[in-house]
Amino acid sequence: MSIIDGRITGFTVYPLAFSDPPLLNAAGVHEPLALRTVVRLEAGDVVAWGEGRGDALPPDVVPALEAELLGLDVFATSRIESVVDGVLRRLRPDLGAQARLMTFAPIEVAALDAQGKLLGRPVSELLGGALRDRVDYSAYLFFKWAGHIGADDDEWGAALDPDGIVAQAERMIDRYGFRSIKLKAGALHPDVEVASLLALAEAFPGLPRRIDPNGAWTHDTALDVARRLDGVLEYLEDPVLGIDGMSRVHAETGLPLATNMCVVETEHILPAVRSDAVQILLSDHHYWGGLRRTKELAAICEATGMGVSMHSNSHLGISLAAMTHVAAAIPNLAYACDTHYPWNRADDVVPDGGIEIVDGAVTVPTGPGLGVEVDPGRVEELHERFVRSGRGARNDGDYMRRGDPAFTDALPRY
Amino acid sequence: MSIIDGRITGFTVYPLAFSDPPLLNAAGVHEPLALRTVVRLEAGDVVAWGEGRGDALPPDVVPALEAELLGLDVFATSRIESVVDGVLRRLRPDLGAQARLMTFAPIEVAALDAQGKLLGRPVSELLGGALRDRVDYSAYLFFKWAGHIGADDDEWGAALDPDGIVAQAERMIDRYGFRSIKLKAGALHPDVEVASLLALAEAFPGLPRRIDPNGAWTHDTALDVARRLDGVLEYLEDPVLGIDGMSRVHAETGLPLATNMCVVETEHILPAVRSDAVQILLSDHHYWGGLRRTKELAAICEATGMGVSMHSNSHLGISLAAMTHVAAAIPNLAYACDTHYPWNRADDVVPDGGIEIVDGAVTVPTGPGLGVEVDPGRVEELHERFVRSGRGARNDGDYMRRGDPAFTDALPRY
Ligand SMILES: [Mg+2]
Ligand SMILES: [Mg+2]
Repeated sequence: MSIIDGRITGFTVYPLAFSDPPLLNAAGVHEPLALRTVVRLEAGDVVAWGEGRGDALPPDVVPALEAELLGLDVFATSRIESVVDGVLRRLRPDLGAQARLMTFAPIEVAALDAQGKLLGRPVSELLGGALRDRVDYSAYLFFKWAGHIGADDDEWGAALDPDGIVAQAERMIDRYGFRSIKLKAGALHPDVEVASLLALAEAFPGLPRRIDPNGAWTHDTALDVARRLDGVLEYLEDPVLGIDGMSRVHAETGLPLATNMCVVETEHILPAVRSDAVQILLSDHHYWGGLRRTKELAAICEATGMGVSMHSNSHLGISLAAMTHVAAAIPNLAYACDTHYPWNRADDVVPDGGIEIVDGAVTVPTGPGLGVEVDPGRVEELHERFVRSGRGARNDGDYMRRGDPAFTDALPRY
Repeated sequence: MSIIDGRITGFTVYPLAFSDPPLLNAAGVHEPLALRTVVRLEAGDVVAWGEGRGDALPPDVVPALEAELLGLDVFATSRIESVVDGVLRRLRPDLGAQARLMTFAPIEVAALDAQGKLLGRPVSELLGGALRDRVDYSAYLFFKWAGHIGADDDEWGAALDPDGIVAQAERMIDRYGFRSIKLKAGALHPDVEVASLLALAEAFPGLPRRIDPNGAWTHDTALDVARRLDGVLEYLEDPVLGIDGMSRVHAETGLPLATNMCVVETEHILPAVRSDAVQILLSDHHYWGGLRRTKELAAICEATGMGVSMHSNSHLGISLAAMTHVAAAIPNLAYACDTHYPWNRADDVVPDGGIEIVDGAVTVPTGPGLGVEVDPGRVEELHERFVRSGRGARNDGDYMRRGDPAFTDALPRY
């Protein structure tokens, strides 16, 4: 028997900025820099990493978090959760339960990475073990500008019509071997988006397809789109806003509906179940409170009759590894997960080749912890980029208005 | 970083028989011997233990289980679960999902005990860590005969009326310091049971009280009892059988209802939630598939608006330790758990003092794994007692008929 010291001896938070292409969505367009937060934990003789959303760790709470986390045991993640919760309730009473879970998530991922490294075991085994060797992801397609405002065209070029989307899909599937397709919609007129999806169905007849307008459609538009896409969708994601709206669309179309918008906290689950608003819940450990809670969420989905898959925001390789470990440990995962990784991997803090999408899937890392190397120099570099950028919160709408001053992000739009 | 070998090198199953007092319930009366199954795992340089129900490991599947479990990794509990599931589906297609989870449960507990011992960490930390140092249990009171048929009176004596129950409660609370009370009912006429509960309320005015007739009452009797016990119950447990029946009782009384009878599998949860039949789910890792699934069940309860506490059958100290670890790790545990331990501890395989109820609570063990010593000689002894007894399944009804030939266990009875 080995006695392992799991006390936290170092806690450092790095807000990062990294390149992001001009991807269109219902809220506007991705700015040139995407934001994430990386957490570095030291415990015993290991260094561990977690990645969270750009707004996961408000700078004003970091010193208090550090003071309270130092000395805690990385094996006591529930205790860490309650300490984080306590600090935030005290210093940021304006934040809700979800914001507190968002703060905890990257810390939990780092704690699990530390546990695994201390034990010589992959994170998947701390969650009950991998049930599959590889986790499938979908080709995440976006309408996009050719390049950022004032910059050259990027390597992907423009995609503003069916031909552009099919070309993007061809390139992405050629590179990564994806075996299912997700089209981000809500950006252009539904006629263009429907035509694009139908073009994808023609170009890739064997692949499951989804479309996600992020609630940009009215009830009538959603019904019309559903009718025009009858038979070509695996599921329809957030066609309209809100549990009541989703429930009505499902009742009238019979289509399976997925969400990462109307069910994002525990308290949304029961209303969604009672009204049969959601058939597939898109989990996201970054705002559901970490990997253990995401596995519990999958059990909740099983008990309440919902399917489960996984949502993504722009992210780096630490999160891709974390998503892959928990996805591998979820028995009822039945769809390819979403990932933005192909759009952001050029700037990754995990060096090239550290984590790869091959044949549309990521092999579950088997090394200790998350099983990926993180380059500390790269973390510093992206942190400096964040500092130099002077960037605050993500704002796709303001950036869109630089191209189209009349743009409004009020939804539904169509 | 340490590399720990977690491969299973030994798997032994011990059906055990141990002394049980003549406790009355809706199904009859406890026989002189209660049955449990203990699993012994060897992995690396540790020996680990799990405890399950008497019927948890059908003898005909043990050799195949051994063959398939040897060489698996104790850290891959989900993989172990699917292997156990596969063996049972092949060899015992007559068994349902719950029976398969019942088989897995003691193996999972032993695997977690092994993990903890290999890592030098308590099982609670494999579940996210203890959120409390002590777990409260309730004084589990039974109507009972003075002694078994043909035997002397036992140390507890008879309890067949309010005075007998109050005397039993006094003795049990004096010894163990319990701070809440559960009365097992459904055995005598409701007038006696109601009078006994009211006598307890008078004798112990400060303690929360529950009554559990195991579905022995008709709808009208349940309403009548609820009326007569108005204001003296913390919750009412399984007053009637079935989700529909529970739903009607709750709708008409407004009382919080608990169950370990009408929601015992994942597929029962949604119907119960939809009809508001259950306000407190009594979890039991022995048939919900182990400690990790029990923690997930607690998350399901949180998401579906149910409270959570814990059910017990006659058990030994391995299970008391396992129950205590998972209870300590469940954030939303809000009631004292049930335990039969005071009735069965004299024959425990955990030597005297190894695990104790003090001030109505068990201190969460902090040693590696389950944190309790198991006496292998005592295991052998209780196993020989099982073999000599020639006992098959538990049958409280047949034993009751030896005292009362007219007894029928058909429910509802009153
Ligand atoms: Mg979405
Ligand atoms: Mg009960």
